[in-house]
Amino acid sequence: MSTGIVLHHLVDSRSQRVLWLLASPLSGEELQIPYTLKIYQRTPTKQAPPELAQVHPLGKSPVITDGDLVVAESGAIVEYLLQKYGNGRFQPPSEGLVKNIYYTHYAEGTLQNLLSNWRIYGMIGERAPWPLTYLSRIIMSKAQHAVLLPTIEASTAMVEKDLEESKTIWFAGGSEPTSADFMMLLPLEILPRAMGERIPKKIKEWVDAAHRRPAYQRALKAGGEYAYAKLLPEASEQ
Amino acid sequence: MSTGIVLHHLVDSRSQRVLWLLASPLSGEELQIPYTLKIYQRTPTKQAPPELAQVHPLGKSPVITDGDLVVAESGAIVEYLLQKYGNGRFQPPSEGLVKNIYYTHYAEGTLQNLLSNWRIYGMIGERAPWPLTYLSRIIMSKAQHAVLLPTIEASTAMVEKDLEESKTIWFAGGSEPTSADFMMLLPLEILPRAMGERIPKKIKEWVDAAHRRPAYQRALKAGGEYAYAKLLPEASEQ
Repeated sequence: MSTGIVLHHLVDSRSQRVLWLLASPLSGEELQIPYTLKIYQRTPTKQAPPELAQVHPLGKSPVITDGDLVVAESGAIVEYLLQKYGNGRFQPPSEGLVKNIYYTHYAEGTLQNLLSNWRIYGMIGERAPWPLTYLSRIIMSKAQHAVLLPTIEASTAMVEKDLEESKTIWFAGGSEPTSADFMMLLPLEILPRAMGERIPKKIKEWVDAAHRRPAYQRALKAGGEYAYAKLLPEASEQ
Repeated sequence: MSTGIVLHHLVDSRSQRVLWLLASPLSGEELQIPYTLKIYQRTPTKQAPPELAQVHPLGKSPVITDGDLVVAESGAIVEYLLQKYGNGRFQPPSEGLVKNIYYTHYAEGTLQNLLSNWRIYGMIGERAPWPLTYLSRIIMSKAQHAVLLPTIEASTAMVEKDLEESKTIWFAGGSEPTSADFMMLLPLEILPRAMGERIPKKIKEWVDAAHRRPAYQRALKAGGEYAYAKLLPEASEQ
């Protein structure tokens, strides 16, 4: 098998945050980790293409190969890359250790799933065949608001408070983003999907700070389509 | 604030795996970590009770307090406890490092969410008010089978293969369970919810091995109601 890291990157997906990490100095001029970007387009129904199933049995992205090793699941990839190649970079200060562990898991374990479900419920509502369409839209909209929204709103308030209490813009209070920040990128970018304009100030500033990182800009240029980056225009135009 | 670890434990919940970990020798006679178990009953509608919101803003379980620190999110709690108090126990052998990171994140990041959604879709189907009940049952059952089941089945096949390839019964191939095993407990216990009787052999053996651990038995006795432990009778009666 080939040597070096390959990021199997699906456009418009969770993979963008791994690309942000890989586009950081961690993988560039300073540490010289060779990595190859392999871009996968979505199918006409917006699914991951079948070729991804040849890389990992679940057929999802992100997934990286590192020689013979295959690593999937965003949180595992971020932890793997930082542990193996981080060389001390992107580590939280000791007072931010717990916040870092928490948000590294919370991003996919809770928030991203709430937001993915928000979209899936909407799709179930829309896609039921006529004559069920109207009823299914009502049922699924009620489910979005009764099942998902209270937890999303509690989450937003919690994240806002933790960012307010952080000594820096980043979750763990260090001078650089840590695994918590890399993981929280996508859910905080797509939060308006459920919350509309009601995104609190610190979260907007965090998204803006991520968007202004040169590595994020490089990742955005490299990764192909990524609609989520445009979701918070008020912040990114500041 | 009080010293020592308190596990705020909701019956019949994700928290059972933290209790399994805390009931291990890690926290008992050998390492002498003091911990207190505080049990919360579910409300009549099976929700977490409001008192949990006084411990952590999302009001979910598991959550632990360790002096002034509050740690939520199963994966974060397991990693925190092993890093701070593990003293070298429950660590994967080097060849199992990546499998351990992967399944530690995959358990909540993917599999548990699929299985939680399986139940939530069923509930949405059942709970729509008459005259929508019949139609919503059809819509949600179709959604279970079209949206969730293919990924659950691919996941089951992947887990089975990885367990077959492991040198021991545990995910990372070591002599003891690691964070991957603690995290995979609940999703593998409730897999029959979606898969019925079609649970492959190695997964059954893994669940059975977990159930036979003395620490698991202690946790079961300590934790109050926990229906999931009875879901795989064929395996546990072996």
